Amino acid sequence: MRLSRFFLPILKENPREAEIVSHRLMLRAGMIRQQGQGSVSWLPLGKRVLDKVCAIIREEQDRSGAQEILMPTIQSADLWRESGRYDAYGKEMLRIKDRNDRDMLFGPTNEEMVTDIFRAYVKSYKDLPLNLYHIQWKYRDEIRPRFGVMRSREFLMKDAYSFDIDYDAARSAYNRMFIAYLRTFARMGLKAVPMRADTGPIGGDLSHEFIVLAETGESQVFCHKDYLEFAIPGEDTDFSDIEAMEKTVRHWTSLYAATDEMHDETAWNALPDDVKIDARGIEVGHIFHFGEKYSAPMGASVTGPDGKEHNVSMGSYGIGPSRLLGALIEANHDENGIIWPESVAPFDIALINMKAGDAECDAVCEKLYAAFTEKKRDVLYDDTDQRAGGKFATADLIGLPWQVIIGPRGVASGEVEVKHRRSGERFNVSLDRVVDEVLARSNKA
Amino acid sequence: MRLSRFFLPILKENPREAEIVSHRLMLRAGMIRQQGQGSVSWLPLGKRVLDKVCAIIREEQDRSGAQEILMPTIQSADLWRESGRYDAYGKEMLRIKDRNDRDMLFGPTNEEMVTDIFRAYVKSYKDLPLNLYHIQWKYRDEIRPRFGVMRSREFLMKDAYSFDIDYDAARSAYNRMFIAYLRTFARMGLKAVPMRADTGPIGGDLSHEFIVLAETGESQVFCHKDYLEFAIPGEDTDFSDIEAMEKTVRHWTSLYAATDEMHDETAWNALPDDVKIDARGIEVGHIFHFGEKYSAPMGASVTGPDGKEHNVSMGSYGIGPSRLLGALIEANHDENGIIWPESVAPFDIALINMKAGDAECDAVCEKLYAAFTEKKRDVLYDDTDQRAGGKFATADLIGLPWQVIIGPRGVASGEVEVKHRRSGERFNVSLDRVVDEVLARSNKA
Repeated sequence: MRLSRFFLPILKENPREAEIVSHRLMLRAGMIRQQGQGSVSWLPLGKRVLDKVCAIIREEQDRSGAQEILMPTIQSADLWRESGRYDAYGKEMLRIKDRNDRDMLFGPTNEEMVTDIFRAYVKSYKDLPLNLYHIQWKYRDEIRPRFGVMRSREFLMKDAYSFDIDYDAARSAYNRMFIAYLRTFARMGLKAVPMRADTGPIGGDLSHEFIVLAETGESQVFCHKDYLEFAIPGEDTDFSDIEAMEKTVRHWTSLYAATDEMHDETAWNALPDDVKIDARGIEVGHIFHFGEKYSAPMGASVTGPDGKEHNVSMGSYGIGPSRLLGALIEANHDENGIIWPESVAPFDIALINMKAGDAECDAVCEKLYAAFTEKKRDVLYDDTDQRAGGKFATADLIGLPWQVIIGPRGVASGEVEVKHRRSGERFNVSLDRVVDEVLARSNKA
Repeated sequence: MRLSRFFLPILKENPREAEIVSHRLMLRAGMIRQQGQGSVSWLPLGKRVLDKVCAIIREEQDRSGAQEILMPTIQSADLWRESGRYDAYGKEMLRIKDRNDRDMLFGPTNEEMVTDIFRAYVKSYKDLPLNLYHIQWKYRDEIRPRFGVMRSREFLMKDAYSFDIDYDAARSAYNRMFIAYLRTFARMGLKAVPMRADTGPIGGDLSHEFIVLAETGESQVFCHKDYLEFAIPGEDTDFSDIEAMEKTVRHWTSLYAATDEMHDETAWNALPDDVKIDARGIEVGHIFHFGEKYSAPMGASVTGPDGKEHNVSMGSYGIGPSRLLGALIEANHDENGIIWPESVAPFDIALINMKAGDAECDAVCEKLYAAFTEKKRDVLYDDTDQRAGGKFATADLIGLPWQVIIGPRGVASGEVEVKHRRSGERFNVSLDRVVDEVLARSNKA
């Protein structure tokens, strides 16, 4: 993409309304536009990152055996009356009346609807396990939306729902998602620690929040430092190996990790000080087993091997991709701007032409643009006539992993300068080797 | 994907509520579930087609120079008050109040919001032309939603908006979209004819509906038969060549083509009978130039080369991907089910194991599954223990382009049977040649 044709409205000033760094940087880098309270438009740069984040989420959901569907945003109130939540849900639910005065709502979540889909079609234990997910806009009428995408009213959510014949099978489904989440966040360059979360009246130990440590995190968290070095399950993970899954999850829940809400001072104090991390955290995912909470009132049952009807045992698994962009920036930035992990960067390379209009610089840039593109790298080619300082500031601000800088002096000597955004490292490399060199140093698959 | 693990709830009976064939087949093939009035859930098979349709739309929008953004579904009423449409829009607009009693609405379209984005950032003619599009859910509270995805209340829409300094530039933007639309529909295997549409109080000739001819179409259309043989602009189309674009659009608007609304009996009667097509049609796209209708009241202007402020000249360009699936099926089916064009088929190949559990049949199927997958073909592998008749019926119903049938007799003789869903042609081919043979006959890039 040529910057001269790319809609990238960079803001020079820090927007006053932005209280946290991710909100500030997303506005300044032209990723989003605040569109009324708790709602944003995604501009081209932001949309590209959102797509890359969703692609990783999809790949890992699919790998673990979940299947993608897409439910509508507007739901009938009747479904929610069946579960009893229409009255129980507070003012966060956006209630709507249609032209015929029927009660509807903008879904804040989809347990009822997906249970309705399940009960319409699935009748036998032979069709289980089943895990259906979708990535769809949700609406929660927050009393105080703020922090850009971190606490908005309209937000994107990946929500998966598992259906199983009994608790043991549901626990395996839970383990699969647990591992899919570990992989998902790790692939985005995030160290997310699963922490026990409150299961409320459901009880049991099957609820975890995945928390990214970041100074600007919204809540206090406490965890054993070894979690940060735990190995992430590999791409070759066998999701049908029930025992291996259980073992992995046990390993990942063996040490202390708790949010403020679930913090146990006594257990914490028993730990040696040098293993304790007491930090701020951002919740990026939440998985939850809730058993028959919806299947029982809504009559979602299957015939078991014993010939009897069994209410299915369910769980739900959420990640907010729009919110995740905020968390990614909170965990990856410096004073000059964003530093994207390579896997989710909107472009891989900023190709900076220091003297656009100069025949030789233009020719070299065009050649490199084509060469990187051929290697499946996304290039943002700065072909504008802005001054050098502005070009560097923009490249740093939008945080592309690699800057490849072409100027008349380098072209004359057959060399280009490369800057690695994360480390700040700069090096010169010959023109004919620059593509291979950047690819070799890149950690992108 | 293995059918034994794929959530594909085939219906054996024709659903009573489905009045038209696309609705009936989408329900029967387990593509969608009707989710209350005018709203559907997309099940895995339907979601796959929707994704493929959207991917083609995106590629052609991007190719023509449009850029993807993503605006929220919920909009503030204030924006619509600026354009005067909040009061003018009738009961089709879903009006909502939030917890603070502020007026909001579920966007039926996005002219106001995109104009707001434009005016916030773009100040100079140098940043033009600009065309921003998004693919987002819309809501129109239809008085009588019906026909499944063809007339629903919640539907997916690709809407693009062009911004230009004056009428001439806006006309070029219109031409680019006109050509992008020709390419988009052609790539999906649809013959879509652009027909002049009513421009209402705006006037001028820059409004076209793209109509697919189908017996079950919703409206009567009249067109010259030569349109059906007109060449589609190629992949190498130069969208910066203003004159070539104009010439192509003139060619594609040179013959008679009109919907019922715009029909001119006199002009029609002047045509020889053997060139007349008087048929039913389905609208699949609509492009429209509306000049300063929104830019003037909303103050979206740029400084021109003359140093003066100019209200930008705008156009909008819509395709409904969810509706398009209905049109695709209306135009591509027979008595046994859907016949997907290869470019949008949910899977390319139905690999049918006639004796699942038989070691040799299983081994051959696994081998072919891997071989097709390696060639980037999507395979739905029927590894179930259903009877042969049921397997064939399912394959025909869901309409995958190719059926590759593996039975014990074939395996013994080293041959497999292949069926081409569209032509019904069947042929035998040796096991080691079947992948190459299917690929060679396929028209998929």
